[in-house]
Amino acid sequence: MTRLLETTPLADVQAHPDTRRVPISRVGVQNIRFPIAVKDRQKSAQHTVGTIDMSVDLPHHFKGTHMSRFMEILNSHDEVISGDALPDILRTMRERLNARTAHLRISFPYFMEKAAPVTGSAGLLSYDCAFDASSGPTDDFVLTVKVPVTTLCPCSREISARGAHNQRSMVTVETRFEGELWIEDIVALVDESASCELYPVLKRADEKWVTEHAYDNPRFVEDLVREITLRLRALDQVTWFSVHVVNFESIHEHDAYAQVEEPSPAD
Amino acid sequence: MTRLLETTPLADVQAHPDTRRVPISRVGVQNIRFPIAVKDRQKSAQHTVGTIDMSVDLPHHFKGTHMSRFMEILNSHDEVISGDALPDILRTMRERLNARTAHLRISFPYFMEKAAPVTGSAGLLSYDCAFDASSGPTDDFVLTVKVPVTTLCPCSREISARGAHNQRSMVTVETRFEGELWIEDIVALVDESASCELYPVLKRADEKWVTEHAYDNPRFVEDLVREITLRLRALDQVTWFSVHVVNFESIHEHDAYAQVEEPSPAD
Amino acid sequence: MTRLLETTPLADVQAHPDTRRVPISRVGVQNIRFPIAVKDRQKSAQHTVGTIDMSVDLPHHFKGTHMSRFMEILNSHDEVISGDALPDILRTMRERLNARTAHLRISFPYFMEKAAPVTGSAGLLSYDCAFDASSGPTDDFVLTVKVPVTTLCPCSREISARGAHNQRSMVTVETRFEGELWIEDIVALVDESASCELYPVLKRADEKWVTEHAYDNPRFVEDLVREITLRLRALDQVTWFSVHVVNFESIHEHDAYAQVEEPSPAD
Amino acid sequence: MTRLLETTPLADVQAHPDTRRVPISRVGVQNIRFPIAVKDRQKSAQHTVGTIDMSVDLPHHFKGTHMSRFMEILNSHDEVISGDALPDILRTMRERLNARTAHLRISFPYFMEKAAPVTGSAGLLSYDCAFDASSGPTDDFVLTVKVPVTTLCPCSREISARGAHNQRSMVTVETRFEGELWIEDIVALVDESASCELYPVLKRADEKWVTEHAYDNPRFVEDLVREITLRLRALDQVTWFSVHVVNFESIHEHDAYAQVEEPSPAD
Repeated sequence: MTRLLETTPLADVQAHPDTRRVPISRVGVQNIRFPIAVKDRQKSAQHTVGTIDMSVDLPHHFKGTHMSRFMEILNSHDEVISGDALPDILRTMRERLNARTAHLRISFPYFMEKAAPVTGSAGLLSYDCAFDASSGPTDDFVLTVKVPVTTLCPCSREISARGAHNQRSMVTVETRFEGELWIEDIVALVDESASCELYPVLKRADEKWVTEHAYDNPRFVEDLVREITLRLRALDQVTWFSVHVVNFESIHEHDAYAQVEEPSPAD
Repeated sequence: MTRLLETTPLADVQAHPDTRRVPISRVGVQNIRFPIAVKDRQKSAQHTVGTIDMSVDLPHHFKGTHMSRFMEILNSHDEVISGDALPDILRTMRERLNARTAHLRISFPYFMEKAAPVTGSAGLLSYDCAFDASSGPTDDFVLTVKVPVTTLCPCSREISARGAHNQRSMVTVETRFEGELWIEDIVALVDESASCELYPVLKRADEKWVTEHAYDNPRFVEDLVREITLRLRALDQVTWFSVHVVNFESIHEHDAYAQVEEPSPAD
Repeated sequence: MTRLLETTPLADVQAHPDTRRVPISRVGVQNIRFPIAVKDRQKSAQHTVGTIDMSVDLPHHFKGTHMSRFMEILNSHDEVISGDALPDILRTMRERLNARTAHLRISFPYFMEKAAPVTGSAGLLSYDCAFDASSGPTDDFVLTVKVPVTTLCPCSREISARGAHNQRSMVTVETRFEGELWIEDIVALVDESASCELYPVLKRADEKWVTEHAYDNPRFVEDLVREITLRLRALDQVTWFSVHVVNFESIHEHDAYAQVEEPSPAD
Repeated sequence: MTRLLETTPLADVQAHPDTRRVPISRVGVQNIRFPIAVKDRQKSAQHTVGTIDMSVDLPHHFKGTHMSRFMEILNSHDEVISGDALPDILRTMRERLNARTAHLRISFPYFMEKAAPVTGSAGLLSYDCAFDASSGPTDDFVLTVKVPVTTLCPCSREISARGAHNQRSMVTVETRFEGELWIEDIVALVDESASCELYPVLKRADEKWVTEHAYDNPRFVEDLVREITLRLRALDQVTWFSVHVVNFESIHEHDAYAQVEEPSPAD
């Protein structure tokens, strides 16, 4: 095998032509952790940690992508990443990588302060969120917000002489929208739809309240997905949504789940 | 609140009418582990453990699904679950749950014996696989096979005076097909496409062979996804496929990835 | 760099002397999946899938271990791995790898049939278990069994006018013992200690029973860990145990936990 | 069952006496995410996200712990959590919960800027770290730092005519120490011990350098654990350490690992 001398300019293997005629829809880097700042309704922005995926398309006639450029773009930006900054990052990705389309996904925990319902004892609760942004012939932006809540089983309540089984549930809401939509908006509508919302700090008077509130608002996994659907339908700015609910059943080892997507792919 | 007497027949809350006009596309149970037997090309079947999701659609006018029926159906079957048994399970799900569509996903490790390339030392290698089957107005079946392989970087090899960085990669192939396609077929075509395949047992003479074989067959993540694409295109029975490759880069903390889907949703 | 001719016997680099004077307590392989058969109280044995770690010690004067021998030993055994087979595997590891001590850990899901409390509807439930075996100057064997159960909060029940929050909990019991102890024994004593045990299939009459049974047997995470401790203390063959309980709180995003170890390291 | 009137003071069930004579070594809350600030060698502090466990002991004569107090203590503190703040938090935990011992574990990603070895292209790399602090009859503090690196196999290099298999490895270092020890110190000594350290951004000239550097510094998993051991032994302030290395083998599906602990429990 021939070996290059140290003084030879280094070969750009990625730029070689490719004759296999296989265009690649996405090629890039993933699982990059990065400190970010996300716009917050209460204060200007909050510091958190993102896990980032970046990719572009690769036409069939190029052998490879220049992966290091993704990392250069990421590290050249301020750490304040909000919806406003994403179009600029995506445009830079398309330019620097000579791509038709660029995709960026940032997953991050988002923190909100919540006060207990009776005593007002306050603390932080975290929500797993994500921004999925694409730029190209068609632009796209999907906001994902995961909200843990309590659900209490209507059947168990109805048929039992006392008590009712209940559990933690995880709601995942994905939305496309026009105009303004806050993470706080999604959390609020999910909380309203559940048997009870979760709180970081609950003193005894609060615990009594949440126990009775859940008992008075029983929800099947089907009810929860429907209540959230009604509230998302009522938001004018939302053009598409998907709701997925998992109940970590307290009476089973397995989980129950339900999902709705509107408009659905079949529509 | 009124409470039922113990002698009252138990209310069927799930069967109540619902007026919210929200049809649910999928409702069911997930994360059920179950011993299964999967058809094997070498012997009649192999014992393994499946993780199962089962769901149906729910028309807007019913309040809830009868979740226990999923578990009854699952536990009424023999533990031999193969492609042949799935249509019967799906049909039973539709009947017992009065549903238009039924979905079943089984994920499982599948074992294959592999012999080392020089010494022939043999052992078992495991592959994460899944069957995704749907029955309804349109039937569907997707086979997923994950194959870990070695990739060696062509650029690193070309520009370096000695050595080349290489790493474990994980290839995920999903296919729809008509007629017969074995998990073994997918594993074989991925193995051929990589810098080198993996083996459970490697003696020194084998280690020399795999090191040199990988060095002689450098593959970018883009090359690997393309080589697999060419081999999947050549299989007449395959009507749709998706290939996703992740390289757990030995020189980075983050991963590189590439994906191809044909026909793509845009086609 | 000098390169060996193809005909030269391959160097045994691992067998080279080492002068750094650092003995290594454990060196080996991990995350090997393997089909296994585990002894079962009801039938002779059940098929399941193990995830295996194997290691030995390495004296300071050897450069490396011969890793391939672990895989050869594993692949030379029948797939029936039970407590009876482990001493033989460990002895072979010590011999083939010239080691003073050998360790083997096998984690696996174990399946048990359970019938619903009222209707008797039966199905399989899975439990994550592990065998940790060591052979050397001192032999050791630790059995780990994880049992998911229901817990219902005594405080919530006491202070609330209706209902009580409850949730799935995960109990991890580790034991050392002399004589015979079955996975089934551990599952039974954990089930008895909880607010309610879990069942794979629950019809409406069963759901009423488990709801009321949990309500009638409230347990803090502290109560559960204590009830299990009392039952483990009462087993003569148990010489050491650790109990760890996590409650996936239905009213919080975070979990509650408690643990007891007897005799404790401080004793 | 008797039910309390709304006007009755709420019962303090946790404060009830317990007669089972089972002291609980740890009871508390876990999996709490919280924004934190960690002291940084370069700048005063960096913002990141912690995952927190808090626990105390519970004497045998008390029925339960007041779980909400953990959350109150956590939410009453400034978000700047560093080694300096931990003693104060632990003392408050012992006081508020009437406990003899208190434990706090915070896991978090920590970010460091690294410049590529030839071009100097800079970017952030993340390291999973943890503080484990205990206060009571004996105080304790353990620092955990996880450092991903490259390892290249000496045997593969020696016996092969070209190339050598290499892979990403994960090193976990735990230390007890007196005086000052920085996360940056641990990262530096692990990086020096490996075949090559990782970088966030690598241009072609850098990739050539890291490929050749790894080839020139082959390390078995045994070598890496020993090199790190030598460097930890040389740090006067370190009183105890544990080193655990996992190689995500590029030629196998399974991983190789090695560990050293000094002084070991047997000493």
